[in-house]
Amino acid sequence: MSAITGNDYMNRIDQLKTNIWMDGKLMTGKVSEHAAFKGVMKSQAALYDMQHDASLQDVLTYPSPLTGHQVGMSYLQPKTIEDLVKRRVMIQQWAKSNNGMMGRSPDYMNTVLMALASSVHFLKGKENCFPENVLSFYEYARENDISMTHTFIDPQVNRAQFYFEDTDEPIVAKVVGKNEAGIIVKGARLLATQGGITDEIVVISAGGVQDKAYGFAFSIPSDCKGLRFVCRESFVGGDSTFNYPLSSRYEEMDTIVIFDNVLVPWERVFYYDNIAIANSFMTCSSFLPFTLHQVVSRQIVKTEFVLGVVQSIIDSINIGEYQHVQEKASEIIVALEIMKALIIKSEVEAELDEWGFMRPDRTTLQIAINYFPHIYPRFTEIIQLLGASGLMSIPTENAFQSSIRKDLDQYLQSKSNNAEDRVKIFRLAWDLTMSAFGTRETLYERFFFGDPVKLASQLYHSYDKEPYVERVQSVLG
Amino acid sequence: MSAITGNDYMNRIDQLKTNIWMDGKLMTGKVSEHAAFKGVMKSQAALYDMQHDASLQDVLTYPSPLTGHQVGMSYLQPKTIEDLVKRRVMIQQWAKSNNGMMGRSPDYMNTVLMALASSVHFLKGKENCFPENVLSFYEYARENDISMTHTFIDPQVNRAQFYFEDTDEPIVAKVVGKNEAGIIVKGARLLATQGGITDEIVVISAGGVQDKAYGFAFSIPSDCKGLRFVCRESFVGGDSTFNYPLSSRYEEMDTIVIFDNVLVPWERVFYYDNIAIANSFMTCSSFLPFTLHQVVSRQIVKTEFVLGVVQSIIDSINIGEYQHVQEKASEIIVALEIMKALIIKSEVEAELDEWGFMRPDRTTLQIAINYFPHIYPRFTEIIQLLGASGLMSIPTENAFQSSIRKDLDQYLQSKSNNAEDRVKIFRLAWDLTMSAFGTRETLYERFFFGDPVKLASQLYHSYDKEPYVERVQSVLG
Amino acid sequence: MSAITGNDYMNRIDQLKTNIWMDGKLMTGKVSEHAAFKGVMKSQAALYDMQHDASLQDVLTYPSPLTGHQVGMSYLQPKTIEDLVKRRVMIQQWAKSNNGMMGRSPDYMNTVLMALASSVHFLKGKENCFPENVLSFYEYARENDISMTHTFIDPQVNRAQFYFEDTDEPIVAKVVGKNEAGIIVKGARLLATQGGITDEIVVISAGGVQDKAYGFAFSIPSDCKGLRFVCRESFVGGDSTFNYPLSSRYEEMDTIVIFDNVLVPWERVFYYDNIAIANSFMTCSSFLPFTLHQVVSRQIVKTEFVLGVVQSIIDSINIGEYQHVQEKASEIIVALEIMKALIIKSEVEAELDEWGFMRPDRTTLQIAINYFPHIYPRFTEIIQLLGASGLMSIPTENAFQSSIRKDLDQYLQSKSNNAEDRVKIFRLAWDLTMSAFGTRETLYERFFFGDPVKLASQLYHSYDKEPYVERVQSVLG
Amino acid sequence: MSAITGNDYMNRIDQLKTNIWMDGKLMTGKVSEHAAFKGVMKSQAALYDMQHDASLQDVLTYPSPLTGHQVGMSYLQPKTIEDLVKRRVMIQQWAKSNNGMMGRSPDYMNTVLMALASSVHFLKGKENCFPENVLSFYEYARENDISMTHTFIDPQVNRAQFYFEDTDEPIVAKVVGKNEAGIIVKGARLLATQGGITDEIVVISAGGVQDKAYGFAFSIPSDCKGLRFVCRESFVGGDSTFNYPLSSRYEEMDTIVIFDNVLVPWERVFYYDNIAIANSFMTCSSFLPFTLHQVVSRQIVKTEFVLGVVQSIIDSINIGEYQHVQEKASEIIVALEIMKALIIKSEVEAELDEWGFMRPDRTTLQIAINYFPHIYPRFTEIIQLLGASGLMSIPTENAFQSSIRKDLDQYLQSKSNNAEDRVKIFRLAWDLTMSAFGTRETLYERFFFGDPVKLASQLYHSYDKEPYVERVQSVLG
Repeated sequence: MSAITGNDYMNRIDQLKTNIWMDGKLMTGKVSEHAAFKGVMKSQAALYDMQHDASLQDVLTYPSPLTGHQVGMSYLQPKTIEDLVKRRVMIQQWAKSNNGMMGRSPDYMNTVLMALASSVHFLKGKENCFPENVLSFYEYARENDISMTHTFIDPQVNRAQFYFEDTDEPIVAKVVGKNEAGIIVKGARLLATQGGITDEIVVISAGGVQDKAYGFAFSIPSDCKGLRFVCRESFVGGDSTFNYPLSSRYEEMDTIVIFDNVLVPWERVFYYDNIAIANSFMTCSSFLPFTLHQVVSRQIVKTEFVLGVVQSIIDSINIGEYQHVQEKASEIIVALEIMKALIIKSEVEAELDEWGFMRPDRTTLQIAINYFPHIYPRFTEIIQLLGASGLMSIPTENAFQSSIRKDLDQYLQSKSNNAEDRVKIFRLAWDLTMSAFGTRETLYERFFFGDPVKLASQLYHSYDKEPYVERVQSVLG
Repeated sequence: MSAITGNDYMNRIDQLKTNIWMDGKLMTGKVSEHAAFKGVMKSQAALYDMQHDASLQDVLTYPSPLTGHQVGMSYLQPKTIEDLVKRRVMIQQWAKSNNGMMGRSPDYMNTVLMALASSVHFLKGKENCFPENVLSFYEYARENDISMTHTFIDPQVNRAQFYFEDTDEPIVAKVVGKNEAGIIVKGARLLATQGGITDEIVVISAGGVQDKAYGFAFSIPSDCKGLRFVCRESFVGGDSTFNYPLSSRYEEMDTIVIFDNVLVPWERVFYYDNIAIANSFMTCSSFLPFTLHQVVSRQIVKTEFVLGVVQSIIDSINIGEYQHVQEKASEIIVALEIMKALIIKSEVEAELDEWGFMRPDRTTLQIAINYFPHIYPRFTEIIQLLGASGLMSIPTENAFQSSIRKDLDQYLQSKSNNAEDRVKIFRLAWDLTMSAFGTRETLYERFFFGDPVKLASQLYHSYDKEPYVERVQSVLG
Repeated sequence: MSAITGNDYMNRIDQLKTNIWMDGKLMTGKVSEHAAFKGVMKSQAALYDMQHDASLQDVLTYPSPLTGHQVGMSYLQPKTIEDLVKRRVMIQQWAKSNNGMMGRSPDYMNTVLMALASSVHFLKGKENCFPENVLSFYEYARENDISMTHTFIDPQVNRAQFYFEDTDEPIVAKVVGKNEAGIIVKGARLLATQGGITDEIVVISAGGVQDKAYGFAFSIPSDCKGLRFVCRESFVGGDSTFNYPLSSRYEEMDTIVIFDNVLVPWERVFYYDNIAIANSFMTCSSFLPFTLHQVVSRQIVKTEFVLGVVQSIIDSINIGEYQHVQEKASEIIVALEIMKALIIKSEVEAELDEWGFMRPDRTTLQIAINYFPHIYPRFTEIIQLLGASGLMSIPTENAFQSSIRKDLDQYLQSKSNNAEDRVKIFRLAWDLTMSAFGTRETLYERFFFGDPVKLASQLYHSYDKEPYVERVQSVLG
Repeated sequence: MSAITGNDYMNRIDQLKTNIWMDGKLMTGKVSEHAAFKGVMKSQAALYDMQHDASLQDVLTYPSPLTGHQVGMSYLQPKTIEDLVKRRVMIQQWAKSNNGMMGRSPDYMNTVLMALASSVHFLKGKENCFPENVLSFYEYARENDISMTHTFIDPQVNRAQFYFEDTDEPIVAKVVGKNEAGIIVKGARLLATQGGITDEIVVISAGGVQDKAYGFAFSIPSDCKGLRFVCRESFVGGDSTFNYPLSSRYEEMDTIVIFDNVLVPWERVFYYDNIAIANSFMTCSSFLPFTLHQVVSRQIVKTEFVLGVVQSIIDSINIGEYQHVQEKASEIIVALEIMKALIIKSEVEAELDEWGFMRPDRTTLQIAINYFPHIYPRFTEIIQLLGASGLMSIPTENAFQSSIRKDLDQYLQSKSNNAEDRVKIFRLAWDLTMSAFGTRETLYERFFFGDPVKLASQLYHSYDKEPYVERVQSVLG
C-alpha cells in the first residue's frame, strides 16, 4: 500500500485497541463513530482522499523512491528549492481544506519524521543511537501512509528554574529498564494532540535533559500494551455545522499520555540513554527548518481565513467606512503578507546541508514562529471588537427551522446578508475565537513551538549579531 | 412585602408565562428548573437570601421611606457621601458572592431605576413625559423587590454613519400606534441579559434618535402579550461545579427581545414621542453617575478574583521567581488599584445635584469605563500565557471518580497542589477565560457601556480641556 | 532666616566654591550666570520668591515649630490628612509654575529630608546610627531653607546579577576610612540632578548592600573638599524662550559625583557601616510614601500640561473631528484622571505610623510609580503622531524678526492661530518631546524611581495577594 | 560628464545662488562650508566618490544606454529581477556608508525620477501632459548625475476633512498663470529635505486635487528666480564626531519651499492643469513600487545599525543574561528579518509592466511601509530602556582631553569597554534616539510615506480580500 484513502485511515484506527479515557470512561466501540472524534476523523479522511483525486495527485503525492508507488508529498526529502516549493504547495493544499484549523494534519508528523530521517547521519556511531531504526520507520510510515502524533512536553509539575524531579515513582516519562525485547518506559508526557486517532505515537525528549534516563526517542503503535491516552473534555459543540462550523469538523483533542511500563521494542528505539544527543539532536538536525516550514505554511492559510472572516463581518454590517475598522483589518493584511514573505525568504535562502538535503533558512522560520504567537491573539481581539453584539446574537440552526424563524429573518437581517447567512458568519466568527474550540486554537498558536519568552531567548542567542556590532565599531572609529 | 428571599424570586418568575424561545423551542415548565437558567437563578436567589441574613441586614437593606420595612440598599437614593459608600459596600458584598461574574445582578437594574427616579424633575412639564409614572414604578419595584432587565441597543443591521431604517416592517423597535390603554410598540431590541428570568423589562431609547417614534422609555412585565425573548445558545457547560465552576452558576443568558405590537399601558410609559428628551435624558440625568458607580464597584471585585486566579496558578506550578511572571501579575495589581482609586475619587468628588441627590463624579467613572474594557482582555491573555499547557490538561470530575484517578493523581500533581486541587484551579482559569462562558464575559466587559471608540470620543468631547490649554497659553506668553 | 527668597538662593550658590566640571573645563565665575544654569536657577529662584507672595504665604509656608518663623510647607511633618492635602497643594502650586518640568524642585529634597527626620526612631540604638544628626540636619535645612540634591545610583559598570566590584581603586563610592573628624568616602555616584546648584548633597546607599563599606547615609555641602561634579553636556538650547520655551528655563543638569577622599564630619553622618540599616531604612521608613506623594503630585501637573499641549495642537490645525485623534487625546485624559485618583486614594487611605506621622498609602503610590513610566512615553508618541510635519516646520524667533516674516505669516498660519502663535505651539511641543531636553525628560520619567522591571517585581512581592487567593479557594470549595 | 565625484557635487552646489534662509538670515558664502550643511554634504560627497572606487564601480554604476559612460545604478530602469537586485545592492552599499541615516541620499530621488521616466506612456496624449519633458529631464539628470530634492506635502493649515483653501493670496502652491515661457507658480510646499543642497527640486501634486490649478508636476533648478528655501533650526550638535557621531555627519535639514511667482519653463513642465492625471499618476505609475523598493532597502540597513547599537549597549554593561533584555533585542531581530523578507518577496513577485519594466510587488512594499513606522519608534524605546542612566552619563570629547579624564576613566569604565569607548557607544545611542537629530529621524520614519492612519486605509482599500471572503463562503456552504 502507498498513499491511503480516508477509509483506509478510519478502518485502521477503528481496528486498533487503543486505550483512550474520556470523562472517566474507557472508550469502547469504533473511535470514528465517537462524538468527540468523528468530525475530525472525517476531516482527516478527506485529506487522505484528496490524494486520490486525479487532479491533485501530482500536487499531493510523488513516486516512492523504493516502490515507485505514489506516496504522500509531505514525506518528500527535499533536495532542491523546487522540492521545498512542492512541499509547501502540498501543505497549503491540505490546509485550505480545513483553513489551517488542523494543527496536526498528517503532513505535520510526516514532515517531522522526514526531518528525522534526513538527519540520521547525526546519530551514526553515537552511543545508544540507532539511525537505521529511524530510516526503516520512516520508510514504513511513508509506504504505509501511517498516521502519527507525538509528545514533546513534560508534565507541568514545577516550573522553577532549578527543579529536578526527585520521586520514587516517576512523573515525567523515563526509561526505567531494558531487556532483550526493548526499553521500558514509565511516566507521563503532555500533550499529544490527536492522541488516540493515529496509528503511532512518536516520543522524543523535551530538551534540557540532565539525567540520561530522560534522553530518548522512539515510536510505538497507539495500542501498545501499557499505553494510555487521557483526554481532556471534548470541545466539539455538536454535530451541526451551522451551529459549530469549526468544532464539529476540526476539534483534534489533546491527551495526556501515560506509559505504564511500556515496552518499546529495540527496532523502534531511535536513541536512548544519551544526554548529549537528547539535548542536541532536535536543534542541530534539520528538525527545526523542515518542521517550521510546514507549520508556517499552515499558519498562512489560517491567517487568510481570519482575514476572510473579518472582511465578511465588515461587509455584513457595513462598517468598512470607519478608519479604525480599516486599521484593524490592515493589521491582519500586514501579518498575512509578513508570514508569506517569511516563507518565501526561507525558501530563497535555503541551503543544502552536508547530507544533500535542502534546508529552508532556519533563522527566517524562527522569526515567523516568534512573530505569529504575538499576532494571532490580536486577530481574535479584532474579531471581537468588530463583531460586538453580533457575536451574542447567534440563534441556533433549530431556531431557524422553527416558527420563530420569521422573527429572526426580520430582526437579524443585515446590510449584505439575510438573517440566516448573517448568523452563519457570526457563528463562524464565534467558533473561531470564542467557543472552547476557538480559544484552544488561540492557546495552541500562542505555544505552538514553546513558551514565547523562551523562543525569544533562543532567537537572541542563536542570531549572529556580530556584523552589526562591528558596523557600530567602525562608526566609532 | 419588602426585600424578598430567593424563594420569593424563583416562585415569582416560575409563575410568569414569559414567552422564551431557545434552540427553536418555546420554553414550558418551570424556568428555574431549566438547565440553562437553574444555575444563575439559584445564584440570584442566594443574593436575595443574603438580605435576610441578620448579620448583613444593615449592609444590604434600609428602611423604606414609605413603609419603614427593610428594602434593598441598591434602591437607596443617596443624599450624602456616606450613602454612596453604603451603596458601594452593598454592591460589593453581593458581587463577592459571585466574584463579579453577574453583570446583571439585581442591584444593577435597581440602581438604574433609582437613577431614573432621582432625575424625574428633568421630565417635568415636558411633552409626552410622565415623571409620576417613573416615581410610582420606582416605588413599586423597591417595595416589591422587583427583578428587572433592560435593553439599550438597536439591532445591528447596518452600522454605517448615515444609515436610517427605511422599511415598511419595523426592525428597530418603535412606537407604531397608541390608544386609550397605552402605546403600541413593534420591532426588536438587543441584548437583554437575564431576559426571561426577571419580573419586568425596562426599555429605553438608544440615543441618537432622529424620528420621534424611536424616542421612548417604559417598563413592562416579562410576560406581556406579544413580547418574546429569543435566547442565544446556552453557555452552561453542565451541572458540575468541578467542571464548570462559573458557567454552572453564573451564565446569565442574552436575549433578543421582540415586540409584536406590545401594548404598554399609559401608567408604565415614562416618556414617548419626544426626540429631545430621548437624546438628553440618559446623559443629563443622574443615570450615568449612579449606574457607573454600580458597574465599577462590581468590576473591582471581579478584578480581585482575576488576581486570585493568577496567583493561584503561579503558586501551583511555582513560577513566581520569573521576572516576566511578576510583571504580568503586577499588571493586574496595577489595574485593580487604579479601579479602586477611581471609585474612591468618584465618591470624594461627589456633588449634590440640583434635586438634592449626591452624584458621584461622573468624569471619574467615565475614566473607569474607558480604562477597564482595554485592560480586562489583557487579564485573560495573562492567564493563558501563565497557564499554558495546564489549561488543556483538564480532565473532568468523572475522571477523578474513575479508575484512571490514580494516574491523574500521580501525573497532574503540582508543586503546591494535589492533582485534583490543581485541576480545579486550571478548570476555573479555563472557565474564566476560555470556555464559551468566559469569552462572553470578556466580550461583555469590552462593550459594557458601548463601543470603546465611541466611549473615547464621548470622553474627549465632555472633558474640560480648556484650563490646560490656558496654561499652555500662559507659557507661550 | 526662614523661608528664603530667590535672591538668597542665588547668592548662596554663587558664594560656594563648588567644583563643577563641564565640557572639560572647571567652572569659574558665578554659577547663576553660566549659560547652562542661569535659566533653571532663575526658575528655582522664582519658586523661592513665591514663598514671599502674600497671597500664597499660607499655601507655601507654615510657622516653624522651633522659631515660629514661616518655613517652607514641604518641610511639614504631616500628622493629619489635612496636612497631607496642604503638602500636596503646596507641591502642585510650585509645580504649576514650571508645569512639572523640574523633577528636582526644592520641595522634592525637602520632602526626602522630612521623611528621614520622621523615621529617626528606626535608627535609635542601632550600631553606627546617628538619628540625632538626621534631626538636627533636618532642622538646619528647614530653618535655613537649604537647597539640596542627592544621589541614589551606583555607576553602571556591570549590571550582571552576580557581579561584585573587586578592584583596588573603588569605583562605587564607599567608606575607605574614618578618623576623629569623620568618615572618609572615595568613589563615584550617579546621577545628581541639579548637582552644583544646591547648597548640599545628600548621599544614601543604593540598597542591596552586601559589604558594610557601602552602607551609609550623610549630607555634605556642595563645595566640600574633594567633591567634584562632572556635568553631562548642557541641554539648554539657547536663551530664547520663543525657540526653547522649556530648556531655556528648566534644564536641571545631571552630574556624576566624585568623592576623592571626601571627609564627612561626624555630625553629618546619619549612619555608616551597617548593612541591615542600609538595606531596610529606605523601604521601612516613611521615605517611600512621603517622597512618592511629592513625585506623583508633580507628575499630575506635568500630565495636565501635556494635555494642554496636545489640545493646542488639535485646535491649531483643526483635527479634533477625527476619531483616532479623539482616542489619542482621551488616552491622556484617562492617564491624568488615574493619577489624580491615585493621589486621592493615597490620602484617603493614609494612616498614622507608630511615631504619629500620617503616611499616605504606600501601595497606592507604588501603583502610580509603576503606571506613569509606561504611559508618559506614550504622551510624547501621541504628540509626534498629531504634530507630524508641523514639528519640523519650526523657524526660529530670529526668522520672525527678519524680512522672511511675511512669508512665514502667510504660509505657516493655521486654522486657529497666526503663524507666530502656531510656531510657538509647535516649538513648545518639540521642546517637550523632541529636543535633547525633552527626551531627557522622557528618560527621567521612565526611570524616576528605578528600573521599571524591578519596580514591577517589588510591587509583586510587597502586595498582599492572599485574600484573593483565599477567595478562589472558597469558590473551589 | 557621467557619474560625478564628491567634489563635482560640492562645487556645483556652491556655485548656485540658491536663496536659503536660516534663523532669519539669508545665507551667503559657500553652502558646503556652512556649519549646518558641511557635514551632510561631505557625507553625500563620499557617496559620489564611491562611484569612482574601482572595486565598487560595477556595483554602483552601469553604462549609459545613451553614451556608454558609467552612470549611477539608481538610474537603471530595471527590466529583469536581476536588475532589481542590482539596484538593491547599490542602494544598500550607499546606505551602509551612513547606516541608513540619510533618507534623501541621491539614490532616492534618482529612483523617483527613474520611476517617472518609466511611466511616461501613462501621460501620452493626455491634456497638458508632456511625457517628452519627463524623459529628457531624466536623461539630463542621469547623464549629469544631478542631485535633487522634492516636496510632496501641502502646508498644514487646516487638516479638517472638508477644508478647501479659499484665500486671495495662495497658501498651498498653485499655478497662477502661464505665458510663452512657461507656467507661473505661487505659494508654498512642505518639507523639502536637503532643500538648498541639491541642483534641482522636483515638485509634484500631493494628490486629492480638486482644483486644476493644484494639479502639476515639474522640476526646476534650486536657484530659480523667486524660489526660497526656509530652513528649520539646524540639528547639527557640533563638529565633533565623538560628541555627535550622527548629527555632525548626516543632518539633512528640512525646508519650507516658497514659490514667489516662480516661472517654470515649458520644457520642465511634466504636466499641469489636469486633475485626473494629478490624482492618478503617482498611484498608477511605477512610482510607488520603485520608490518604496529604495526606501525599504535603506530601512533594512538602518535597522541593522540599530541592532548593532543595542547589542553594543548590552555587551558594554553586561545585561545579556536577562530574559527581558533578550526579548527586547529579539524584537529588533524580528523586525530586521521581516523587512528583509519583504524586500525579497517584492523582488520574487516582481512583474513586468505593460511597458517592459520590472516592477517589484507593490503590495508587499506597502506592507513594509505600513509596518516600519510602527516598529521604528519601538527601537528608540528599547534603546532608552536598556541604556538607562548610561544615556545621561555622557561627558564630551573635551572632558576626555582634560585633567578630569582620569576620573572618567575610573568611574565610567564598563564590563567590556574602557570609559572612552563606552561613552562613545552611549553618545551614539543618544544621538540616534534622543538628540534633536535622533528624534527627527524617528519622526521622519513615522511619516516617511504619509500619515500611518491613511496608509492603513489605503492598504485596506487596495488589498484584494475577495478570495478569502470566498473561502469563508465555501465553509458556510
